[in-house]
Amino acid sequence: MKKFINKPEDFVDEMIEGILKAHPTFYKKAKASLREIIRSNSPEKGKVAIATGGGSGHLPVFLGYVGEGLCDGVAVGDVFASPSAREMYNVTKAINGGKGVLYLYGNYGGDVMNFDMATEMAETDNIEVETVLVRDDVASSKNIEKRRGVAGLFYAYKIAGAAAYNGKNLQEVKSITEEALDNTRSMGVALSPCTIPEAGEPTFEIADDEMEIGMGIHGEPGIERTTLKHADEVTNTVIEKILADGPYDKGDEVSILVNSLGATPLEELYIIYNKVKDILKDKEIKVYNNYIGNYATSLEMSGMSISLMKLNPQLKTFLDAPAHSPFFTQRDLRDN
Amino acid sequence: MKKFINKPEDFVDEMIEGILKAHPTFYKKAKASLREIIRSNSPEKGKVAIATGGGSGHLPVFLGYVGEGLCDGVAVGDVFASPSAREMYNVTKAINGGKGVLYLYGNYGGDVMNFDMATEMAETDNIEVETVLVRDDVASSKNIEKRRGVAGLFYAYKIAGAAAYNGKNLQEVKSITEEALDNTRSMGVALSPCTIPEAGEPTFEIADDEMEIGMGIHGEPGIERTTLKHADEVTNTVIEKILADGPYDKGDEVSILVNSLGATPLEELYIIYNKVKDILKDKEIKVYNNYIGNYATSLEMSGMSISLMKLNPQLKTFLDAPAHSPFFTQRDLRDN
Repeated sequence: MKKFINKPEDFVDEMIEGILKAHPTFYKKAKASLREIIRSNSPEKGKVAIATGGGSGHLPVFLGYVGEGLCDGVAVGDVFASPSAREMYNVTKAINGGKGVLYLYGNYGGDVMNFDMATEMAETDNIEVETVLVRDDVASSKNIEKRRGVAGLFYAYKIAGAAAYNGKNLQEVKSITEEALDNTRSMGVALSPCTIPEAGEPTFEIADDEMEIGMGIHGEPGIERTTLKHADEVTNTVIEKILADGPYDKGDEVSILVNSLGATPLEELYIIYNKVKDILKDKEIKVYNNYIGNYATSLEMSGMSISLMKLNPQLKTFLDAPAHSPFFTQRDLRDN
Repeated sequence: MKKFINKPEDFVDEMIEGILKAHPTFYKKAKASLREIIRSNSPEKGKVAIATGGGSGHLPVFLGYVGEGLCDGVAVGDVFASPSAREMYNVTKAINGGKGVLYLYGNYGGDVMNFDMATEMAETDNIEVETVLVRDDVASSKNIEKRRGVAGLFYAYKIAGAAAYNGKNLQEVKSITEEALDNTRSMGVALSPCTIPEAGEPTFEIADDEMEIGMGIHGEPGIERTTLKHADEVTNTVIEKILADGPYDKGDEVSILVNSLGATPLEELYIIYNKVKDILKDKEIKVYNNYIGNYATSLEMSGMSISLMKLNPQLKTFLDAPAHSPFFTQRDLRDN
């Protein structure tokens, strides 16, 4: 296991300690625990608060999207493991500004169970809680309700965060975020696995001449294991699956996210984007903007995912709104 | 070779095509070649222009640091290979705003030879050219003149770009950038190699239980190959070398850059930062700000580097100045 770590069991805590030391005016602990992190200026009175959380190993997901115009707090689990309901509840109390709290996270069993328990705990404190699950991975199930959340988390945070900062109430933030996610589809391709520090073994095995199309960010099985193919062919396969599944028609405008799962470098992401843009041009789907880089990762996994979000005027406004965290900055201008 | 690529010989051109398609209002070709890229609003009359360049495979170095408050143009070579003098010269002409051009790049033989030839070509056009070489890698030689440029390139671009945007003349930009680099030292540690697409073989071999301290970003030999050590121990070794070599004393203020060479994830960079901060605290060296992420990479190489720049009031002003490219955004506020 080739990593810059100390004791595997200290991996998550030392990472969070590093983040708190690096950005001391930006983040703080909700109470005493390193696993309950909120923005320093939280709670903001009169603003809907957004809580997220999940297993570690996906930076900037989740902690990196606690920021201005993004989320307000996060419960941080062990690598690829849910944080506890108690941690979620403590974050909820710490960020509640009196306008309710939106739970916004990926559709994974442990997270759903614990956030639902946290909801019950918060309600005994008369904190209004709503939940939006991110289920953007078209490869994970034919049934949308059962799909996992992957890089579409980024769009969910961006839209929900901007809506909350623009004074929308809890029901409105929930409904706008659901609309954004109804318009969002993602799919990934893995080339090589990552290793969870405490396990010490790769999350899956794959031959030197193989790739897996549709693989999940924790190594969940995809829809096809195949020999290595050219970037253009892989990109075409992924885009075809996304377009066949989602609400994308000729004349629509979309935002594109080409995401590295960790080790795949920017150079390759731009080769992929080069093809995505051509395919969408052929289909007369207009590209409004793009995000290309490490937005939702799995430690050092080699692979990529592509996400599309169909836009409308309101979603454009919230997508274009400024946002800032130490992990993601968007100025108050359209930059591309 | 597990990569998202098409034909290896098209790797660089397709990457640049992707970048131009993704950021069409930001970048443009100087003339017809994909290997000569400048900011869309270049040349800017009355501003010192900054040209950089070098081999591909290091994004955001070099192209990603063409931006507002950063560089004006770049000559792009094949992977790990210098661009030509002609390409550098064409970029120079295209970005010249009448106040001269600073060549700012890493100290590698081919790049030096070609930029020097480009200087002669530019001078026949009466374009004033000055050169600052980045030589921050303390592991590469005991002789500072012979050292290679690595992640310190980031600080060089940031300071030179801000100085040029603040109206400094060519001699002033040169001198401020040299001062910044006199105050900057870097050192890296590699865990695993990358593969140049056209070569198809890893750039070096290293056993599963080994790391190489001081290795260069193209796989140049380091100062020690050792069995895997804990992150804290490695960090301590790197910081000790940097502090022993550079102008860092008790009471000084520094900026820290913890950089991934590609595949090393953010989680590990923050574990490293956690230790860096503790070591500097013990030494009573104050940390002014930090940059943590993928700032100068080698494709999918696994490894990291640490850079320190000692600050003074003028360097702080230029470090804090806003900057923006599609690859790096710093708002006009201190964010950390």
